[in-house]
Amino acid sequence: MANEWATFGADLHLELRGPRLRAGLMDALREAVRSGRLEAGTRLPSSRSLAADLGMARNTVADAYAELVAEGWLTARQGSGTRVARRAEPRRAGPVRAEPRRAGPGSAGSRTTSAPPTLSLPRTSAPAHNLKAGTPDLASFPRAEWLKAYRRALTAAPNEAFGYGDPRGRIELRTVLAEYLARARGVYARPERIVICAGFVHGLMLMGQVLRARGVRDVAVESYGLGLHAGLLTGAGLGTPALPFDGRGTRVEELADGDAGAVLMTAAHQFPLGGALPPDRRAAVVDWARASGGYVLEDDYDGEFRYDRQPVGALQGLDPDRVVYFGTASKSLAPGLRLAWMVLPEGLAGEVVAAKGAVDWACGAPDQLAFAEFLASGAYDRHVRAMRLRYRRRRDQLVAAVAAHSPETRVSGIAAGLHAVLALPPGTEQEVLRAAAWHGLAVQGVNQFRRPGVPATLDGLVVGYATPTDSAWQGALRSLCRVLPQEGPGDHGRDAP
Amino acid sequence: MANEWATFGADLHLELRGPRLRAGLMDALREAVRSGRLEAGTRLPSSRSLAADLGMARNTVADAYAELVAEGWLTARQGSGTRVARRAEPRRAGPVRAEPRRAGPGSAGSRTTSAPPTLSLPRTSAPAHNLKAGTPDLASFPRAEWLKAYRRALTAAPNEAFGYGDPRGRIELRTVLAEYLARARGVYARPERIVICAGFVHGLMLMGQVLRARGVRDVAVESYGLGLHAGLLTGAGLGTPALPFDGRGTRVEELADGDAGAVLMTAAHQFPLGGALPPDRRAAVVDWARASGGYVLEDDYDGEFRYDRQPVGALQGLDPDRVVYFGTASKSLAPGLRLAWMVLPEGLAGEVVAAKGAVDWACGAPDQLAFAEFLASGAYDRHVRAMRLRYRRRRDQLVAAVAAHSPETRVSGIAAGLHAVLALPPGTEQEVLRAAAWHGLAVQGVNQFRRPGVPATLDGLVVGYATPTDSAWQGALRSLCRVLPQEGPGDHGRDAP
Repeated sequence: MANEWATFGADLHLELRGPRLRAGLMDALREAVRSGRLEAGTRLPSSRSLAADLGMARNTVADAYAELVAEGWLTARQGSGTRVARRAEPRRAGPVRAEPRRAGPGSAGSRTTSAPPTLSLPRTSAPAHNLKAGTPDLASFPRAEWLKAYRRALTAAPNEAFGYGDPRGRIELRTVLAEYLARARGVYARPERIVICAGFVHGLMLMGQVLRARGVRDVAVESYGLGLHAGLLTGAGLGTPALPFDGRGTRVEELADGDAGAVLMTAAHQFPLGGALPPDRRAAVVDWARASGGYVLEDDYDGEFRYDRQPVGALQGLDPDRVVYFGTASKSLAPGLRLAWMVLPEGLAGEVVAAKGAVDWACGAPDQLAFAEFLASGAYDRHVRAMRLRYRRRRDQLVAAVAAHSPETRVSGIAAGLHAVLALPPGTEQEVLRAAAWHGLAVQGVNQFRRPGVPATLDGLVVGYATPTDSAWQGALRSLCRVLPQEGPGDHGRDAP
Repeated sequence: MANEWATFGADLHLELRGPRLRAGLMDALREAVRSGRLEAGTRLPSSRSLAADLGMARNTVADAYAELVAEGWLTARQGSGTRVARRAEPRRAGPVRAEPRRAGPGSAGSRTTSAPPTLSLPRTSAPAHNLKAGTPDLASFPRAEWLKAYRRALTAAPNEAFGYGDPRGRIELRTVLAEYLARARGVYARPERIVICAGFVHGLMLMGQVLRARGVRDVAVESYGLGLHAGLLTGAGLGTPALPFDGRGTRVEELADGDAGAVLMTAAHQFPLGGALPPDRRAAVVDWARASGGYVLEDDYDGEFRYDRQPVGALQGLDPDRVVYFGTASKSLAPGLRLAWMVLPEGLAGEVVAAKGAVDWACGAPDQLAFAEFLASGAYDRHVRAMRLRYRRRRDQLVAAVAAHSPETRVSGIAAGLHAVLALPPGTEQEVLRAAAWHGLAVQGVNQFRRPGVPATLDGLVVGYATPTDSAWQGALRSLCRVLPQEGPGDHGRDAP
């Protein structure tokens, strides 16, 4: 999820343009205070950083802050920054709160977040920092380059591109993708076997329907992963038994003992634990699929981002007839484009296309054509290269900061991707997450990704270092260091809460 | 569907740009001949009209034709146009044809379509003319205006627009749509009750799931409609009983005798028969919904296009709590954008959003923002006004041409929309459709839209006069007139085949 600050801009986008820019921002802030979304005492981001996040001029934000201070909504005090004034109780339905302190503008400036409370309950207001994994740095979306590709694509598009389309997606995009995937990910792809879909979730939903219709009952999953994905499979009527996990990754050899018809894997970069499936297990899972007639569903969500050596190629190259490859632009470019792709074994392509429907209702043709142009022009490669350098720098800063502030904390899963795992002393994950919530840091623990039934043997934080904007990154990192266990005997071996 | 000629451009889009433009077109034409898609003797469109359809310079097409004539693939003869040469049998699997005449380039120029065959079988090659209903004139997509809106929207978008979105769709678009729908269609819409979806089919699929999960067993449909739509409902596990039909439209009073939980209607402009539901029946269907707790699913697919007086307002305005409104940009702008919207009763909104999923996987945010900008800037209104004039002119030309060539043929359903119905003498629809196929005219009969179980009482053609490009329109119209019954006693009262 994007950080909450940016959401203000979104909610009032139409007012946030042209002469009404400042007024729109002021309305958004007033409404946020009025509704209780911004609690009294909450410190606002600096005008510089909010301006950067919203793509506005800094003066516009500074002026809006100044006017809201004058109106009594906000307070500004040297050294304390701009905060929400104690002004009026939120207009909420439900029982009246005890002692709603309706204070006038004059009483503003009190600081409610300066001292920790005795009960360490998570704060309900929007987090100030976001290190949840799964989203790239949205401020880095290459607007100008994308626009250029869109303009070229729209100008060159044949008229029929504006009509009802092939359910597989535009042939132009599938043609360029086939070439790109072969080159960059070692995928064996022919355009007619590629199906464009609106994000990985759309593809997985279709695949779940097809497998279920074929009589498959179970799709095995990894011990740790996104509940949303397993939920799409169970929603299609499939069971999702979790494969066990050891220090070398997912124990795919256990597939032989079950009767799963397919297995969903993040083979190149396990999500969220971060490792690559070792070569013998890559071979083993493909052998299983061949021997059993099963399928490997390869979720190659961030295959482009590997920092210390060449990317691990896709599993799909080992057996294009038994591996369904899923790729996406959500991590490399932006989730908001809703662009992803499947490369299907010949035996499945027809059924998936039929499940998608007679009409391609997934992605608008102009965006598909723009993406084709973006890929073909080399802009995609350039963007990925630039982001790889940027994320690598953040990763190095994360490793260095953790080493300095919490030397006992091991950082793993750092060879690739947009997130790392910080191992915590046994039983401390919940405690650290509560501290993070108190400090306004949105971050998740590894156990939030643990599949039901998998024993809890790991404690750790999943840190999405790509998520913040550049202006928010250093603050988020400092906030993270604050909640990590500090060196000292008292911090080790604490009981789980 | 777009006309087949334009598809050539699509299949080879990447080759059809820059210096490889002509070569790409030549490859596409060679491949079409080689594969049998273009049969020997088929007349190609003029270089001017193909160039217009593909968005190319006329010279590029003319040069490609000339080279292919030189290579022996095509022939050009004064008065006969450019045709596919008798050159080589198609590379087809299957039994060898009797006497494949493998003639060299020298034998080119023979005309195989000049005389009708004794058996009137439909031709298998691509139709030369397309009057199938359901697609607007794709050549009229306002590329420059859309691009302008896209550029503005992308520049002004907050960063979070590129992230995972609200499953309802972008708030900017929902806000502008609420205003537009109230103004243009009399829809009572608040942004929080609007859900953006990827085409009407996506919305109907979601609604089918929600109704089924609520325990609804049947959704009533009109006697005539798209099988695709009924199929989406049956795919969700719902029955689709058809309501009877009389000279005043759908007999909604019959709903009281059934136990349908909802009814799918094209109240403003019945598809395909073309009438508007009369006021007393509009009231009756809403009364039924109120009394029974059912829902009216209003498919307002072309509500913007009404020619002779003010548009008929949406049914939804009569009771926003019992009518689900579905609108789309597919007819007013382009199906390729995959942009549609639902306006939901409060009681249904949560369930539909849940069915859509935690992540909005339907439409890319940039296109949603561009459409919001397109609406807000007035470009949408201007486009709809311009297209209304254009389609109205075509409609008038259709009426005039039919009156001149087939004075007995009644044209109905002409007050609105992008299609008309041409009533045929009883029992002649199949015959006329076969003649149309023989003449290379793609057009559908009303009985292709008749729901299973509905008695066949009408014979007619459904003519989508918006479908051709401007350059193809007159040819399509002439082709239509050729297949209509000519005046004379022998043409009346023929038996059904």
